[in-house]
Amino acid sequence: MSQYHAKVFVTLKPSILDPQGRTVERALAHLEHANVSGVRVGKLIELTLHGDRAQVEAQLQDITTNVLSNPIMEDARWELEEHQ
Amino acid sequence: MSQYHAKVFVTLKPSILDPQGRTVERALAHLEHANVSGVRVGKLIELTLHGDRAQVEAQLQDITTNVLSNPIMEDARWELEEHQ
Repeated sequence: MSQYHAKVFVTLKPSILDPQGRTVERALAHLEHANVSGVRVGKLIELTLHGDRAQVEAQLQDITTNVLSNPIMEDARWELEEHQ
Repeated sequence: MSQYHAKVFVTLKPSILDPQGRTVERALAHLEHANVSGVRVGKLIELTLHGDRAQVEAQLQDITTNVLSNPIMEDARWELEEHQ
């Protein structure tokens, strides 16, 4: 049984409006960063899992899709690395 | 002048309590994911910048430190790739 460190990246689908991102973009424009566009704010969730790799991968896919993201509005992907 | 796609990862420093992460962790435990621990919720901010690479890198460092994160409580790092 090993320990794994996972990162889950959750972003709004491109077709979904992102008011928080728009607000950041406008703030940046006022701060003389007018060359910045397309700001989107998503989530990065870090977690630690114990178990066998195959079981942990299946579990992480389940958690990512069913708990940490809303598949209607969000895209989600994960990375897993064994913790030394 | 090129177009760059940047990702900024903002996470709470390890010493800072993360109530949102704790809540997710407890919810997972109730969903039979008791082998999950250390849940931390951070931000992933995506943006597009136009300019020369050196200028864009300096600008992104400035934005990351001074706009998108709070260096007292958060760690932040960024990735930059040229957009084809």
